[in-house]
Amino acid sequence: MLPVIVVHGGAGWIGKERAEGSCRGVQEAVLAGYRILQRGGSALDAVEEAVVAMEDNPMYNAGCGSVLNELGGVEMDAIIMDGKTLASGAVSAVKGIANPIKLSRLVMEKTEHLCLTAEGASRFAKAMGVPEVEEESLKTDYSRKRWVENLAPGSNPVESQMGKMGTVGAVAIDSQGNVASATSTGGMLNKMVGRVGDTPCVGCGAYADNLFGAASPTGHGEAIMKVTLCRLILFHMEQGMSPEKAADTALDYMKTRVRGIGGVVVVNSSGDWAARFTSDQMAWAAVKNDQLHYGLYKGESFTLPVTST
Amino acid sequence: MLPVIVVHGGAGWIGKERAEGSCRGVQEAVLAGYRILQRGGSALDAVEEAVVAMEDNPMYNAGCGSVLNELGGVEMDAIIMDGKTLASGAVSAVKGIANPIKLSRLVMEKTEHLCLTAEGASRFAKAMGVPEVEEESLKTDYSRKRWVENLAPGSNPVESQMGKMGTVGAVAIDSQGNVASATSTGGMLNKMVGRVGDTPCVGCGAYADNLFGAASPTGHGEAIMKVTLCRLILFHMEQGMSPEKAADTALDYMKTRVRGIGGVVVVNSSGDWAARFTSDQMAWAAVKNDQLHYGLYKGESFTLPVTST
Repeated sequence: MLPVIVVHGGAGWIGKERAEGSCRGVQEAVLAGYRILQRGGSALDAVEEAVVAMEDNPMYNAGCGSVLNELGGVEMDAIIMDGKTLASGAVSAVKGIANPIKLSRLVMEKTEHLCLTAEGASRFAKAMGVPEVEEESLKTDYSRKRWVENLAPGSNPVESQMGKMGTVGAVAIDSQGNVASATSTGGMLNKMVGRVGDTPCVGCGAYADNLFGAASPTGHGEAIMKVTLCRLILFHMEQGMSPEKAADTALDYMKTRVRGIGGVVVVNSSGDWAARFTSDQMAWAAVKNDQLHYGLYKGESFTLPVTST
Repeated sequence: MLPVIVVHGGAGWIGKERAEGSCRGVQEAVLAGYRILQRGGSALDAVEEAVVAMEDNPMYNAGCGSVLNELGGVEMDAIIMDGKTLASGAVSAVKGIANPIKLSRLVMEKTEHLCLTAEGASRFAKAMGVPEVEEESLKTDYSRKRWVENLAPGSNPVESQMGKMGTVGAVAIDSQGNVASATSTGGMLNKMVGRVGDTPCVGCGAYADNLFGAASPTGHGEAIMKVTLCRLILFHMEQGMSPEKAADTALDYMKTRVRGIGGVVVVNSSGDWAARFTSDQMAWAAVKNDQLHYGLYKGESFTLPVTST
């Protein structure tokens, strides 16, 4: 039943003009990751590749297309976690690089640490030979437009955020049974300079443990942190819940306890998977047994053979 | 049986020349917090006050006395969490302020966010009128000496760290039954610029939930993050374990699964408490029923009436 990969392109409300592109992007991303798994590659490589595809796609709030902070700048958070060793790597408030998820992987593999922030992360990127990119190259007309709209008095960036586009993420299990999780984001619209959300925080923005599975979230970061959403889902799976039941139980808890809306993709150690959300929409896609599954609205799930894509 | 407060001054090995000062400091800190609880103050105020006392004490690796990073600079992490609302506030890699725990409280209460990092945290501190202090005022002869020692080729800062002094933290439950947790640290000796450890990461460096209790950890930050130590302890208490059993079970798991050594202070919603560690020593102190308890070595627990202190 292995390998399996599931990705999301953010929970929220996605307008008609962006629905098609958003759905296409997650399918491209999941197939990019699946190709790695098919040729015997690792879950870690697959989730990284899938997230890179979405960071490079201006449709999503990660890498190019990230939302802008209060000063109109781009500060990004990302995390990757290896379920075999519980090792993870993360960056927070990093600027001027194209793929924060790749830098997170380098933090995991090339340092003694799990997270580097801001200037320290940039310093490390330089030392690793990661090319610096112009901040403007990460902005889009859409991100600039939304930033300006939310400068107006009385605007509500949190509501606006939930209404548009979100964080990206992926979980996978490879043919050796190793699981991994990866998440990347531009954060919250018009956030304060230096705001760090759930993404780079282990247990909140990702968790992966070969014994139980892996999860990657999207939604209101501050709510996700309050309930340590991914760790909560793993605990539920440890106690015998399916990925779907664990995801729904944790998302319901986040909604009732701290009024937080969001979504998750989850896989367990048997290769069962789920893509669940309490928002109106979440672009998601999964591949298992050479079948591509995808959806956008609640209850929606289309299936195609991978060979036809 | 309420209120109760428990503090720690870091897990590790504490030399004879620092043992007395380290024990005295945690007693002063726990009494400072207890005085607030005695006059009906909140658990949040009490843990903040206790941590401020230890940040101001050059004996500990937090505030003044913080270990230095690879460039000889001081970058501090802190977090505070409110068990009533699951709200928290944190700062990471913040420079040039005396009390990171106070700034964390301001992040929690004055922003929409849960964590601010590096320059963004400094920017917010300025906006809040928090005085900037000279970086040199946070250094001690001892922190400078250890930095130089660990620049030598073949030195092992991780081992050296565990051998000396650690993070500080506090948990409390007030007479209304509200719990809180607070943790503050200079991080890991000779760490990379921008390294963020477990402390500002919700569920790792602190967790507090009125339904179950609160925990604050110390030890090897990267190991604490891998197992989301505080959240794990809360889950164990949710499943019926006492604070002592929950702490021991989680610390054993951290030791066996990721070879991590550390310690924790824990309180549950009934006011039962524990101070447990897998390191050789941890300076800790607790007050309950007007009795001061304290210890440094494994198995050690002294008791004095608060009135005699």
